[in-house]
Amino acid sequence: MIEVESKYWSPGNEKVEKVLVSLGAKKISSGTMEDVYFIHPGRDFGKTDEALRLRKKDDGAELTYKGPRMNLSTTKAREEVTLKTDNPLAAQRIIERLGFKEGYVVRKTRESYIYDKLRVELDRVEGLGEFVELEILTESPEREASLLELARKELALDRPEQKTYLELLIEKGAAARNK
Amino acid sequence: MIEVESKYWSPGNEKVEKVLVSLGAKKISSGTMEDVYFIHPGRDFGKTDEALRLRKKDDGAELTYKGPRMNLSTTKAREEVTLKTDNPLAAQRIIERLGFKEGYVVRKTRESYIYDKLRVELDRVEGLGEFVELEILTESPEREASLLELARKELALDRPEQKTYLELLIEKGAAARNK
Repeated sequence: MIEVESKYWSPGNEKVEKVLVSLGAKKISSGTMEDVYFIHPGRDFGKTDEALRLRKKDDGAELTYKGPRMNLSTTKAREEVTLKTDNPLAAQRIIERLGFKEGYVVRKTRESYIYDKLRVELDRVEGLGEFVELEILTESPEREASLLELARKELALDRPEQKTYLELLIEKGAAARNK
Repeated sequence: MIEVESKYWSPGNEKVEKVLVSLGAKKISSGTMEDVYFIHPGRDFGKTDEALRLRKKDDGAELTYKGPRMNLSTTKAREEVTLKTDNPLAAQRIIERLGFKEGYVVRKTRESYIYDKLRVELDRVEGLGEFVELEILTESPEREASLLELARKELALDRPEQKTYLELLIEKGAAARNK
C-alpha cells in the first residue's frame, strides 16, 4: 500500500475545520502525538530519504518505517509499514539495543477527519505552526491525484509544503535534539 | 528483568511431563513455534552473542532482542526485551527494510508448565530432539540458582546444554538457511 499525501500551510485550522464539517466530513480522532525519529547505525536516513519513527499517542503507539519519497508534482508517495504496539518502552529499547539512536522529537496536536476517500489531518506542530494534510492509501497513486486536487480547492489550501515537519524543524534549528 | 535459564537434553519429555504433573505443576500452554533469527547489517550477532528473533506462534507473535549471556556455571542469564505483536508480517518487513536479513529458522513444539516460581518448557526441536528448559524471570539471578537446582534433581535432568538451539542446529548443519 502506498500513502499519497500532500501537505499545506494552513489558512487557519479553525476555518478549515468549519468547511470540512459543512462538507459532511467525519471527525475520527483528536489528540497529541510525540514522534521520536531514530538515527540508523550504518545508514544516513537524511540522504536515503528514509525514516524510522516511534509515534506515542494518547491511546497507544506505533512503529513506522517510511521509504524514500517518489515525487508526483506536489503530492508525495512513499512506502509505509506500521506496527502497532501497546508497549512503546519495549519498542524503543529493542531499537536502541540494535544500535539506533534517538535523533529528533516532533510534538503536535492532530484532529483527523474522513472526507470521502480522503483522510484530512489538521496539525498544530510545536515550534512550527498549523498545517493541513490530505492523504489517501492506495495501490494506484496516479489515479487518486484528482481527488486530492478537488479537496485542496474546497479547503482553500494554496501553500504546499514538500518538506516533512522534521525537516522544517531542523531547518528552523528548533527541533529538540537529543544525545 | 533478567531471564535465568538452564537447558538440558531431555531424558524423555513424556517421562518428565509425568513427574511434573505428579509434583502439581500447571500446564499453561502447548503449541508450535517458528523462530526467525535475523542477521544484523553491521554487527556479527554470533560474535557479540546477541540475537534478534521474531517468534511466530499459533496465537500471535513477538519480537525479542537478547543481549549477551552472563555465565553463572550451568545457568545462563541475559537481557531480554520482548514486544508482542499481532502483525508478524509488518514486523518482519520493517526489520528487513532497516537492513536486517533473515538468517535462520528454528521450528519446535513446546509444552509449558508453571512449577513453583519456575517456568518449565518441554521442547521438541525439528532436526535436534527433545529438551527441557527451566526458567525464572528475576532481578537477582544469583539468589534463584538453588531453586533451579532443586527442580533439576526432581526432574532427573543431568545433561546440561549451554548452546542455543540455533547454535546446535548450525553445528549440525541442519538449520534451514535462507538467502
